Amino acid sequence: MTFLKIITYLGIFVFALAGAFKARGAKLDVFGGLVVAFVSAYGGGTLRDLLLGVKPVNWINDNLAFALVFAGTAVTFLVKDKVNNFRRTIFFTDAIGLGLFTAAGIEIALRNGTNEIYGLVMGVITATFGGLIADIFCGYPPLLLRKGELYATACAAGGIFSFSSINTLALPKILT
Amino acid sequence: MTFLKIITYLGIFVFALAGAFKARGAKLDVFGGLVVAFVSAYGGGTLRDLLLGVKPVNWINDNLAFALVFAGTAVTFLVKDKVNNFRRTIFFTDAIGLGLFTAAGIEIALRNGTNEIYGLVMGVITATFGGLIADIFCGYPPLLLRKGELYATACAAGGIFSFSSINTLALPKILT
Amino acid sequence: MTFLKIITYLGIFVFALAGAFKARGAKLDVFGGLVVAFVSAYGGGTLRDLLLGVKPVNWINDNLAFALVFAGTAVTFLVKDKVNNFRRTIFFTDAIGLGLFTAAGIEIALRNGTNEIYGLVMGVITATFGGLIADIFCGYPPLLLRKGELYATACAAGGIFSFSSINTLALPKILT
Repeated sequence: MTFLKIITYLGIFVFALAGAFKARGAKLDVFGGLVVAFVSAYGGGTLRDLLLGVKPVNWINDNLAFALVFAGTAVTFLVKDKVNNFRRTIFFTDAIGLGLFTAAGIEIALRNGTNEIYGLVMGVITATFGGLIADIFCGYPPLLLRKGELYATACAAGGIFSFSSINTLALPKILT
Repeated sequence: MTFLKIITYLGIFVFALAGAFKARGAKLDVFGGLVVAFVSAYGGGTLRDLLLGVKPVNWINDNLAFALVFAGTAVTFLVKDKVNNFRRTIFFTDAIGLGLFTAAGIEIALRNGTNEIYGLVMGVITATFGGLIADIFCGYPPLLLRKGELYATACAAGGIFSFSSINTLALPKILT
Repeated sequence: MTFLKIITYLGIFVFALAGAFKARGAKLDVFGGLVVAFVSAYGGGTLRDLLLGVKPVNWINDNLAFALVFAGTAVTFLVKDKVNNFRRTIFFTDAIGLGLFTAAGIEIALRNGTNEIYGLVMGVITATFGGLIADIFCGYPPLLLRKGELYATACAAGGIFSFSSINTLALPKILT
């Protein structure tokens, strides 16, 4: 499995967790939680693939990704913790996911022929769009737009990581 | 006209009705009602086609589908009934549409190369996404996420119908 | 630069302004404002391109479009005016953008093989979808659905302009 695949699957899992916690916080049932977890985990990469013209989108027939979302939702709905404690969990999983997905999004965009500016735009879309839609589905005001600086910082971190270390460390592994 | 086409057009009409009733309940004008009816009827199939990479999406230049949505909206806005009575109508049209669209969505996904798991995912997306967006457009909390079990049941019914009877009864007709 | 390009860039700029003003009115920070300006300016054309199967979508690697959205957002957030005065500005920029984008959307749809009915549908989608999503992102009830007649009128004006004058005045320039 390439480095890019590993960070993508990690990102899918943490975003599924973040989405399922959001859904529980909004008092959705387990089926609603599964939908929100899916949207959180797949939403950003899906929009990126649609915009780039990658077809069909990356996760079609990816049973591992499906299993990760399913497992993330199941874990979340089995935890007996109080909902208040979710806030910190959502914050941390979201921040980790943002960095991972920004890096992965930039990498995939550049490979599909975007320039650096639109590579960054695609990285940000990959990282933020799933959580944005999940917020809207749960009836929350979109956190991305309220706490923009926070998101911008996390994305910038992922972006710098991508433009620097991925290219030097990971590309040799990816190309082989 | 194939069996698949017939259930798709039936689904478009009942979802257009459900969307237009939702719009009237939310006190939208007739133009807003037409937009919501469109989104209800076309939304799920559109997302499925985009995800599968079917291009252009199925309804482009389909004047019959356009006429059905138009007719459904016109009927809804001409009815003089009280808004309270709409609830049951929306419930029934939604339930019928869910079953029809799940079956059609699975069928189209499998033909486009998804495995069974993602066939089911595409069936659920086809059936539920239009109503979800229509709810958000009308400012309602998305019913799909609140009454998940209900939707899951209707989709499962459509799915079982699809995996069993379509394959035995309808495929011969479709293939000819 | 063709006539079609010019009205598209004009539309992008005025919709970016309208989006950024909406975001300021909703008390979003400058990063949130940039996201909403992007969605306002790019949203409608993006959905049209996805539906028509144009890939990748028109604005990928279009640095001028990016600069216009960036400039529109910067101008909006530097203005020291009171938020109340924004209403009229949003109204006028929206109305101008609607006419421009309806005309451009119809033109692009017809070139991509839609019939007249779906050309008009695509024109309306191009003109209205960005503002609709921007409203939802800002937590406003979608204005399109509340003031449908207003939007319908502006779109109709753009449509009539498109079907009449573009074809006689502009097409010769576009084709050369």
